[in-house]
Amino acid sequence: MITILRIGHRIQRDKRITTHCALVSRVFGADKILVDTLDKKIEETVLSINKRFGGNFEIITGVKTKKIIDEWKGTIVHLTMYGEKLDEAVKKIDTKKNILLIVGAEKVPRYIYEIADFNISVGNQPHSEVAALAVFLDRITKGKWIDKKFNGKLEIMPCNKGKKVITNK
Amino acid sequence: MITILRIGHRIQRDKRITTHCALVSRVFGADKILVDTLDKKIEETVLSINKRFGGNFEIITGVKTKKIIDEWKGTIVHLTMYGEKLDEAVKKIDTKKNILLIVGAEKVPRYIYEIADFNISVGNQPHSEVAALAVFLDRITKGKWIDKKFNGKLEIMPCNKGKKVITNK
Repeated sequence: MITILRIGHRIQRDKRITTHCALVSRVFGADKILVDTLDKKIEETVLSINKRFGGNFEIITGVKTKKIIDEWKGTIVHLTMYGEKLDEAVKKIDTKKNILLIVGAEKVPRYIYEIADFNISVGNQPHSEVAALAVFLDRITKGKWIDKKFNGKLEIMPCNKGKKVITNK
Repeated sequence: MITILRIGHRIQRDKRITTHCALVSRVFGADKILVDTLDKKIEETVLSINKRFGGNFEIITGVKTKKIIDEWKGTIVHLTMYGEKLDEAVKKIDTKKNILLIVGAEKVPRYIYEIADFNISVGNQPHSEVAALAVFLDRITKGKWIDKKFNGKLEIMPCNKGKKVITNK
């Protein structure tokens, strides 16, 4: 089971980036996202996607970061451009254990680097936590996220031209 | 050579998402990003990253979408959740030709679906153009983006705890 912990979320500035983090987590094989700042709007957005497109991805906002971390039973991974190389690090992670995957906005407090079992970089260059999350989850699931069934009311059928959407009863 | 074309950019709403698209393009092996709306602020952000972290990634904002597409010599790929499956589609793309990779914000005009040689989905679920871009570029470069040298003034050395940054003269 993979849980994402999004820290440093500021409602106004980060609403779209955190929403993208949540939707990426949902699609790329995570089970749940926890966000440190209470933000009902983001919860609603994610739940409305579940309602239409299926799955039971969970979102909880307004969690206490320190409590989550202190009580975590399993592995803690922090995504940062300062961390060790992705492909080598991923091999060391025991995927049978629960993973708490921490994704920060802007400056991340030092103690996160210290408590993390793994600080992992998706390229040692500045880019995007949304991209880092997607590529990390792609690697840790060995690309199997793409076969996940959501059994939603709406189902998009892949096609090279136009849009094919099935409405399931 | 891979050029990203970001369409439907609205300065206020999309500034952070388009910036993330640009920075992801820079890191994941694209050479250039074109943005349809003039936005000097995003240009400055990307150029300041180049200045500190190296590379010669280009950004031009305020381009005319139709002109770029009409005059394109090479393959046109459009990333959309309605498109054909990523892994199968990527195999069909001739990477010796120049690629124009179109990434839309919100609703994309129908003619884009029609003129694209490939409409490709990174999972047939709603998530994020930033993530779609990263995962597509990861696949098309066969993960080799990670070895790209930027030769910047600042260079981050991968490590499992803390931050190691080298300042090159």
